[in-house]
Amino acid sequence: MALATKKYIETHQDRFLDELMDFLRIPSVSTSKEYATEVHKAAAFVKQKLSEAGADKAMLIDTQGYPLVYAEKTVDASLPTVLVYGHYDVQPADPYELWETPPFEPVVRENKIYARGASDDKGQVYLHIKALETMLATQQLPCNIKFLIEGEEESGSEGLTRFLENQKNVALLQSDAVLVSDTTLLSLEQPSLTIGLRGIIYLEIEVTGPNRDLHSGVYGGAVGNPINILCQMIAALQDEHHRITIPGFYDRVAVLPEQDRQALAKIPFVLSDYQNALGIKAVAGEHGYSTLERTGIRPALDINGIWGGHVGEGGKTVLPSKAHAKLSMRLVPHQEAREIVTQFTKYFTALAPKGITVEIRVVHGNSNAVVVNADSVALQAAIKAFEEVWARTPLLTKDGGSIPIISQFKEVLDRDIVLMGFGLDSDAIHSPNEHFGVANFFKGIDTVIAFYKYFTSLHA
Amino acid sequence: MALATKKYIETHQDRFLDELMDFLRIPSVSTSKEYATEVHKAAAFVKQKLSEAGADKAMLIDTQGYPLVYAEKTVDASLPTVLVYGHYDVQPADPYELWETPPFEPVVRENKIYARGASDDKGQVYLHIKALETMLATQQLPCNIKFLIEGEEESGSEGLTRFLENQKNVALLQSDAVLVSDTTLLSLEQPSLTIGLRGIIYLEIEVTGPNRDLHSGVYGGAVGNPINILCQMIAALQDEHHRITIPGFYDRVAVLPEQDRQALAKIPFVLSDYQNALGIKAVAGEHGYSTLERTGIRPALDINGIWGGHVGEGGKTVLPSKAHAKLSMRLVPHQEAREIVTQFTKYFTALAPKGITVEIRVVHGNSNAVVVNADSVALQAAIKAFEEVWARTPLLTKDGGSIPIISQFKEVLDRDIVLMGFGLDSDAIHSPNEHFGVANFFKGIDTVIAFYKYFTSLHA
Repeated sequence: MALATKKYIETHQDRFLDELMDFLRIPSVSTSKEYATEVHKAAAFVKQKLSEAGADKAMLIDTQGYPLVYAEKTVDASLPTVLVYGHYDVQPADPYELWETPPFEPVVRENKIYARGASDDKGQVYLHIKALETMLATQQLPCNIKFLIEGEEESGSEGLTRFLENQKNVALLQSDAVLVSDTTLLSLEQPSLTIGLRGIIYLEIEVTGPNRDLHSGVYGGAVGNPINILCQMIAALQDEHHRITIPGFYDRVAVLPEQDRQALAKIPFVLSDYQNALGIKAVAGEHGYSTLERTGIRPALDINGIWGGHVGEGGKTVLPSKAHAKLSMRLVPHQEAREIVTQFTKYFTALAPKGITVEIRVVHGNSNAVVVNADSVALQAAIKAFEEVWARTPLLTKDGGSIPIISQFKEVLDRDIVLMGFGLDSDAIHSPNEHFGVANFFKGIDTVIAFYKYFTSLHA
Repeated sequence: MALATKKYIETHQDRFLDELMDFLRIPSVSTSKEYATEVHKAAAFVKQKLSEAGADKAMLIDTQGYPLVYAEKTVDASLPTVLVYGHYDVQPADPYELWETPPFEPVVRENKIYARGASDDKGQVYLHIKALETMLATQQLPCNIKFLIEGEEESGSEGLTRFLENQKNVALLQSDAVLVSDTTLLSLEQPSLTIGLRGIIYLEIEVTGPNRDLHSGVYGGAVGNPINILCQMIAALQDEHHRITIPGFYDRVAVLPEQDRQALAKIPFVLSDYQNALGIKAVAGEHGYSTLERTGIRPALDINGIWGGHVGEGGKTVLPSKAHAKLSMRLVPHQEAREIVTQFTKYFTALAPKGITVEIRVVHGNSNAVVVNADSVALQAAIKAFEEVWARTPLLTKDGGSIPIISQFKEVLDRDIVLMGFGLDSDAIHSPNEHFGVANFFKGIDTVIAFYKYFTSLHA
């Protein structure tokens, strides 16, 4: 790295962190309307910081939901252009009582920044903004950059999805590669690049029995109980080998070549460490696959929430009218999300006994798995950037998570994607006490700057 | 009925109802600590009204929980004594949004009193107090009466249970019969007396997997999800014939003689009416039994509440650390509640896969089924009372509900019990829009007064 660049970052590192703290103080939870004002505030913050970093045309683009923040910096039209995508919204922070410090009052403990959104994705968005600032301040920006930072990643990217339906907007985003920092590294010692993401379907289920809550003494044993029945229906979705029982579900699942399974098996992974970190005595998943395969290349089905009947204190003897669940499925290459929504709906509805009605609402139903082209110039540049900054070749991993909008980017923009995440699996994203390493933040800035350099030279 | 009695009730009927409305305005929910002040207020109200009705020694007896209201009126020590039991506490009123009028702002609509507790049990307690007032005001009380009205029936009768452990207290309650109005009639046209109640066990279950909430993308498919697993465990508690699978559960269940089943089959019951009233297309229960048998003479298992993961708005992708359920079982004669708690705990814990821990907390674990002696003087007096007031012989029914303390009364006091309820199954007790018929209230007063007359003469 150029000395000037290094010096600039060193000189300004406290300010960089302070600004990130300001960003993290905004509770921009996009899944709940009560935070609407704060989500808008976070959008304005990002736009402001992109302007201050030296971007041209920083602007908010209205959507039906929360605004997109767009900015660009054109060095020379003949140079390649990289589109940086990220999100300024965060997951809900409940349960609050499990946070050691309040989720929206960021603190640094043991060289980690604790706050909701620290790793997912504010810390990773902000390191891109500071990389831009650094490159411009030191005259080191080697290519053109566009930023697109959305505010609905945690709630379905509806606004951005609609935005991408308009060809004029697609033209605005024209670029030679899309760079995303919203995934994780294996460790600070062993960097990695994500070359696969699972798709996701997220559904809400309502099961209804009697037309009102009943007394479970008077009616118990004679009237179908929606909670018991919902449990039976959920239990029927998986067999004793942890395989999903929806007819047709596995039909399109790609069978991984033996060499790919062998490559996956080489990724450092110690089962006992994994179990200890989670406080479990055993993992559980589809028979015949390793833990990394179960999350990397195999689909999954999880109940993300369930509720019904009396959930307060004490012993109310109710046979409730309704029971509810939130259910998600993670999809792998070549499963078709829309097709699976149809398969699930047909199967699940048929599981309901007579006298029970089922309603299924699709929350997200359009996110297929993402496969990164390992031969692309963009990925090669990313590998070189890691080798320079981390002094080690990154391993290529397949993540279990999903970034729903990425599959749409791939489809609509038809450009190579680089998933250059700087988080760690232990960052507790979506959990209490989310955090992001200070080292991850600063090494992220260095890696991003190196990426632009290699991408520009390899692209030439 | 004596003319004076009839006239007294007619003259005072508006006041009787107004006073009941005052009683119903007190939100004496015993299951939730936030209503503690109100529950105490309801106790004081009952004591005050018993005094005003003319009872001697009306008093509050402190317990570890809410006080017992005790009162007595001795006419002559040589006459028999009846102990009236009831409760001044009520079920929680949630979900509030489903009430047509607020649960603690009683109103009369179409000759029914709408309020939480109207039928269960304030309306039924209050008709006893007004029967006492009427008999004393008109010099018609033929025997001695004791009142014991508790405030924890809806939350386990802990205080009363402890009270009954002391022989001095048992002596205070000595009587020749126990009269309870906390059950239902078949209809206003066809009165009935309850000769069986199911017992109850109520448990809270906590299932724990990983030590924190996880991201369902990163971990889904590889780590056991406590919600999915809880659902599987709950589903395993019943087989496809709706039989409970706990080993030993049915061992002591009394096999009903054919003649008793035939008697049960004579109780007026129209399945289509039942289904229409509940808005269901089919009933569901243990194979080989009718609906009345399923609730009257067969045990049942219901999930009364379930919760876990993200239950708010939107689509949080969490694989939660814990999932919870409230589970109750209704027991029939000769099942032993304590034994079944042990059987359940052993079986349910063993259902948990490796890596999952289960905690079971017993909310109520000590209520066996109650069988009323059909040959007792008390029951014969009750039958005659119905014949006089309702001009029809009451049918003898077995209710699915439980009054946990009654089985303890039977054991400790060793006296005949009469379950002389005046509610209707359609009263929506434990549900939104609970109500109690004005006619039920006043016919209840008449029937109670007639009962004392017949009991005293038959007892002689």
